[in-house]
Amino acid sequence: MSTTTDKYAFGMIGLGVMGRSLLLNMADHGFAVAGHDKDQGKVDSLNQEGDKFAVKGFIDVNEFIQSLTTPRAIMMLVPAGKPVDSVIAELSPLLDKGDILIDGGNSHFTDTNRRVEELEAKGLHFFGMGVSGGEEGARKGPSMMPGGDKDAYNVMKPIFEAIAAKVDDAPCVTYIGPGASGHFVKMVHNGIEYGIMQLLAETYEIMKKGLKMDNAHIGEVFARWNDGRLQSFLLDITKDIFKFNAPGTDHLLLDDIKDEARAKGTGKWTSQSAMDLQAPIPTVDTAVAMRDLSKYKELRTKAAGIYSTADHQQIEGNKEELLTALEQAFYFTMIISYAQGMHMLSNASAEYKYDLKLDEIAKIWRGGCIIRSKFLENIYGAYGKDPKLAHLLLDGDVSDIVTSLLPGIRKVVAAAVNAGIAAPAYAASLSYFDAFRSERMPSNLTQAQRDYFGAHTYELIGKEGTFHTQWTAKQD
Amino acid sequence: MSTTTDKYAFGMIGLGVMGRSLLLNMADHGFAVAGHDKDQGKVDSLNQEGDKFAVKGFIDVNEFIQSLTTPRAIMMLVPAGKPVDSVIAELSPLLDKGDILIDGGNSHFTDTNRRVEELEAKGLHFFGMGVSGGEEGARKGPSMMPGGDKDAYNVMKPIFEAIAAKVDDAPCVTYIGPGASGHFVKMVHNGIEYGIMQLLAETYEIMKKGLKMDNAHIGEVFARWNDGRLQSFLLDITKDIFKFNAPGTDHLLLDDIKDEARAKGTGKWTSQSAMDLQAPIPTVDTAVAMRDLSKYKELRTKAAGIYSTADHQQIEGNKEELLTALEQAFYFTMIISYAQGMHMLSNASAEYKYDLKLDEIAKIWRGGCIIRSKFLENIYGAYGKDPKLAHLLLDGDVSDIVTSLLPGIRKVVAAAVNAGIAAPAYAASLSYFDAFRSERMPSNLTQAQRDYFGAHTYELIGKEGTFHTQWTAKQD
Repeated sequence: MSTTTDKYAFGMIGLGVMGRSLLLNMADHGFAVAGHDKDQGKVDSLNQEGDKFAVKGFIDVNEFIQSLTTPRAIMMLVPAGKPVDSVIAELSPLLDKGDILIDGGNSHFTDTNRRVEELEAKGLHFFGMGVSGGEEGARKGPSMMPGGDKDAYNVMKPIFEAIAAKVDDAPCVTYIGPGASGHFVKMVHNGIEYGIMQLLAETYEIMKKGLKMDNAHIGEVFARWNDGRLQSFLLDITKDIFKFNAPGTDHLLLDDIKDEARAKGTGKWTSQSAMDLQAPIPTVDTAVAMRDLSKYKELRTKAAGIYSTADHQQIEGNKEELLTALEQAFYFTMIISYAQGMHMLSNASAEYKYDLKLDEIAKIWRGGCIIRSKFLENIYGAYGKDPKLAHLLLDGDVSDIVTSLLPGIRKVVAAAVNAGIAAPAYAASLSYFDAFRSERMPSNLTQAQRDYFGAHTYELIGKEGTFHTQWTAKQD
Repeated sequence: MSTTTDKYAFGMIGLGVMGRSLLLNMADHGFAVAGHDKDQGKVDSLNQEGDKFAVKGFIDVNEFIQSLTTPRAIMMLVPAGKPVDSVIAELSPLLDKGDILIDGGNSHFTDTNRRVEELEAKGLHFFGMGVSGGEEGARKGPSMMPGGDKDAYNVMKPIFEAIAAKVDDAPCVTYIGPGASGHFVKMVHNGIEYGIMQLLAETYEIMKKGLKMDNAHIGEVFARWNDGRLQSFLLDITKDIFKFNAPGTDHLLLDDIKDEARAKGTGKWTSQSAMDLQAPIPTVDTAVAMRDLSKYKELRTKAAGIYSTADHQQIEGNKEELLTALEQAFYFTMIISYAQGMHMLSNASAEYKYDLKLDEIAKIWRGGCIIRSKFLENIYGAYGKDPKLAHLLLDGDVSDIVTSLLPGIRKVVAAAVNAGIAAPAYAASLSYFDAFRSERMPSNLTQAQRDYFGAHTYELIGKEGTFHTQWTAKQD
């Protein structure tokens, strides 16, 4: 598998921005690679890179297939859903046993499960691979989460390790596990991303509406935070956004953008799957709900008319002290987002027999991906010490940090609540924490109610079995 | 369709507690009814009622079928899932065109959709019907939500109206809409039920841990609330639970029950479906998450050890004032639970073409069902005035109430936050409100971030189309 053969070591189907960027990244690292697309323009454009790199584009799928070394490793980067099935249907009759198909898109993991089974029956290996980092990541070093047959992974391993982002010389790619585990882990990655993005939006809201800060000041604070322990890709780009003017104006482009957030669904999938796993991730759920709520602009505008005078919105108190608390609060909620996501992964690992290595996953998220951050070193450290750690919040070092942040998060949420400023993901993160560290929750009442009205039975402390009571019976 | 014929007007398959109770309720109202079960004991037990009522139990399914007037109306009360399909498979070859099968269980509405289509192809009508009220409701007057073919509904209408709970002489049953709409509405009913049950659990938590009240005092407060504007079935049974001692002891049975709540899944389905509809119901989502979190007793116990001293848990301030605020806060969150559920129904009505009559739904929820409450009169009033009301919080009378409750809910959530007491559904309800009444949400930042890292494009205020920016480009 090198450039000295006249065959290509890796094939890409779909030469859009992501597929093309990944191919060129591979070529950069000395691999001869081939691409296929039905769009002649995209094929031509790739072939123009042939002067500099060992890349070749094919419009003919047969020629493309025949150009590859065997066992073939072919990645698809086509839209999730039916297009993936179409490509598989077209391609699989042309492949030989042992060949490997890799879906590099954000497919739902249940679709990936099905495809793994269908292709296994034909003697083909199917990989679901999460790729994070956007266009720039694809070109210069993404974080990659490949799941599928463990032995087959060795075919791609040198290429993937070469093109991945590096942190301390370690590549941000590792074999995740069997079946759809790669897509599952990427889905949870995106769920965490939803959570942190919502938290950043709320932080902006608190600074703007609660502390009456102007954009310049807000941008400065984000930039300052990004120089410290909060350093992260999402904070980094947020800081940039607060410097970017609408072309030809002296105000931020941000101010011209509609407050209606769209979504491609991976956050929703994460929340829905977490509910199936009974792994609570309320911070992510809240982020999904708020993206949805943002679409109801007309209702919100009407509601603002009705309820606008019901509350003041200024947060009282010393602004610098509040900003100090806000930095703590954001750190706290960011940690909770990761903690919920990791807990969900550990549940999925048991339920779906993925045998996930949470330390390895934290390790490859440290670079290249959207949720990379300084704190991922702490997560890597926690699971490195104890790969079977049941919950991130139970790690000693993490709990020391979390404990130190409690005054800040309490101050900020209480201030937002009193000032009538919506900070739903902040509040959800804090109440998740407070419930999580409750040895005794009030859920005994829920059990009693269910048994009262539905005879659903209940369980007793220290006794085996389930019990039912006629709650309306007379007692002496 | 009367007792003078030697045929039976209605058939029931599954003579468990719910099926038997509904049949006897029908017999009470003068309808001759038949039941079928494979369990001879249940059939015999029903036949023993034959002295008093026009009821007959059959062990033989053919005899059962032949005993019914045509078109036949046959209800199944069997566990959701495969058992429903098994009964349908056994029964449908025995039926005649125009006969009606009614699934009275809590089936997922997507299963009901499929069954409606499958049976329609055979000339049979399939109804998904929500039945709420538990055993007592089934026997004495449930709330029923039948969905299916509108003309076919007339066959059952006199029976259902006779057996339903009555409020101001109006029966708590109405034709809901086509397809799976009956099961969908029942699912959302259960979602609201999850929300209010979680809120009651948190109220108990706040009184117990925050206000250090004993059980007797907590029970008194629940009883007092239930005599006022908060009157509701769930509060009523909660008040009873706070009077019920563990047999042979002088302490509450409640105290012996495990704090691990179980769930049959309808709340989860509601949240998952709401996410598909992009109709945010964060109070329900939170209730689902907290039932799930309650299962992690071991983790919570460990976390309590690590974080127990991080916060105090006593709420400071005048206890009576706090209880007054708590009554307001609970009322506020209960209203939000209903508002989210109704909003979800209005989305589903448009998306799935159910043509739901929200006023009629509120009307039939006023009696017989688990979420019946005095406030449902207000909801009925709001949608009665304006059946197309886009959101309950936009109704004038409701908004007057909500506005009056804001000081209470803010005080309670801030107090819980400061004292480290988990009140996640309280907090989620308030932050939903605060976001809902935001003419401008901070979601513009989310749009900008998505475009920055993923080229997902954004929308501009006052301009058509979508736009993409190279956010890292140098600006002058």
